[in-house]
Amino acid sequence: MPATFTPTLTADLYPAATARILYADTDQMGIVYHASFFRYLELARINLLRSAGVSYTEFERAGLGLPLIEVGVRFASPGLYDDLITIHAGLSRITRVRVSVQYRVMVEAGDRDGTTEPVEILTAETRHCCVALADTKPARIPEIAYERLAKHRSAATPGG
Amino acid sequence: MPATFTPTLTADLYPAATARILYADTDQMGIVYHASFFRYLELARINLLRSAGVSYTEFERAGLGLPLIEVGVRFASPGLYDDLITIHAGLSRITRVRVSVQYRVMVEAGDRDGTTEPVEILTAETRHCCVALADTKPARIPEIAYERLAKHRSAATPGG
Amino acid sequence: MPATFTPTLTADLYPAATARILYADTDQMGIVYHASFFRYLELARINLLRSAGVSYTEFERAGLGLPLIEVGVRFASPGLYDDLITIHAGLSRITRVRVSVQYRVMVEAGDRDGTTEPVEILTAETRHCCVALADTKPARIPEIAYERLAKHRSAATPGG
Amino acid sequence: MPATFTPTLTADLYPAATARILYADTDQMGIVYHASFFRYLELARINLLRSAGVSYTEFERAGLGLPLIEVGVRFASPGLYDDLITIHAGLSRITRVRVSVQYRVMVEAGDRDGTTEPVEILTAETRHCCVALADTKPARIPEIAYERLAKHRSAATPGG
Repeated sequence: MPATFTPTLTADLYPAATARILYADTDQMGIVYHASFFRYLELARINLLRSAGVSYTEFERAGLGLPLIEVGVRFASPGLYDDLITIHAGLSRITRVRVSVQYRVMVEAGDRDGTTEPVEILTAETRHCCVALADTKPARIPEIAYERLAKHRSAATPGG
Repeated sequence: MPATFTPTLTADLYPAATARILYADTDQMGIVYHASFFRYLELARINLLRSAGVSYTEFERAGLGLPLIEVGVRFASPGLYDDLITIHAGLSRITRVRVSVQYRVMVEAGDRDGTTEPVEILTAETRHCCVALADTKPARIPEIAYERLAKHRSAATPGG
Repeated sequence: MPATFTPTLTADLYPAATARILYADTDQMGIVYHASFFRYLELARINLLRSAGVSYTEFERAGLGLPLIEVGVRFASPGLYDDLITIHAGLSRITRVRVSVQYRVMVEAGDRDGTTEPVEILTAETRHCCVALADTKPARIPEIAYERLAKHRSAATPGG
Repeated sequence: MPATFTPTLTADLYPAATARILYADTDQMGIVYHASFFRYLELARINLLRSAGVSYTEFERAGLGLPLIEVGVRFASPGLYDDLITIHAGLSRITRVRVSVQYRVMVEAGDRDGTTEPVEILTAETRHCCVALADTKPARIPEIAYERLAKHRSAATPGG
């Protein structure tokens, strides 16, 4: 049996972004090409950070970045052209240098033409390391940002 | 401790494709945006199938597809603009309905301006399910393709 | 003197879509990579058609497509990460088989961190031909869609 | 009659790059999504500069960039999955601050499964302005690069 990359969702997830699937996202199988979803995950991640009080732009102004160092995605069912997708996201882990985010992409009930059922498209987790932009070496997350992220996470997870 | 998505490379990998990193692949951190690598993985995967005697185009003509259903990637170090990357790939698992492929993206010695050392960029695994294009439901891999893939894999893996 | 591709805006443009520039859209020059804008133009175009009463999904169900056959873009100033862009769009020409759309991408006053001035990012025009999906040959736009598009255009253009 | 963006090819074009169309490039119309071609144009452009003795990486090290400021594309016929495309490119205009490149994307005879005829996919022109990376303001092309580009162009164009 192979190990699984399937992310087990442990974080409390919030609807962090919605988007309409474009023709640009599809492939000739008539479904969304797998790699098209990564920009939607980014959109949700940035909104999630913002809602925790952390602006990625300010992060960069402080000379820091949060590149993705690991990702796992399990596709549950195909995304389709013109789907209105909702990307749910939550912080699953915060350390002094790392941030992990979990995602669940859904077509909510009524948001796909021709069905009234909600549809799960994928679940995913991305792991990020704080780095200095100058040399791409690991760096500590600024105290204020760390506290806001930790607070946002524990608000979601009683006892977390 | 969180579970890891890090793919443990178990397949014998071959250099399946080379490519020059474009400006289109970079982001403002000055490195390759993570999602840019997926098309290079596709390029290697298609070449790998071809070298096993399986043409994806013929696969489609038979009314079948091989959509990606799971993916795990671990980024070891940043890809850079103008890097000449080599994508090593190998079949890690073949069943009657599924195919798994493992990858290692390298900048081989001499292929990055300014260094003579080889650099590992990432390791990854993608898992695919054979489906009927008509309804995106799981379908058996055609016997001839299955045999070729299994043979290619066991040639790589004595006793495999 | 070379001919110019610069589209001269002749259509009345409406704000058809807004979007937040992602990291995925940037390149290592620290600006938006030129090709990243095409999906935003698509987003605006689809919204524009929808507001004229023409659903692209229904168009496809009727066995028709509207592939892009010509495009001209003039970039006025760089788009930046985290810009909130507004894509203004309007129908510039409708015939029985062709549709042309013009665009102006703006960062409206207050929508870029660090400035209060509006910024023009680009102007563009795309030309599309109605085709039968079966053979990608030119086909007539269905009467009802033609009328709605023509009406939408003449509402915008007195005497048009 | 609307003005045309159709680039009239005036430059001598050379085969500057070849590439295999990926699934990532296609859309659900079963053809190559228009925006997918821009990375292939970049690939050809960089190779063309390189063959003229101008490395874009060195250009950047000198603090300069060549962002695209205008583009026109005419699509002649659809690109298809698995097509082996050849991107022909040539310098059409060099000034002290600007560079224009013309392109013709072809599927050469024998390079598309199912036909032996060559197929023209598109013609295009991109116009670039030399800028200082520090402030994105126009800057002079370095003398040595200018001379090499001008020489490459006049070698192609007797009397040019």
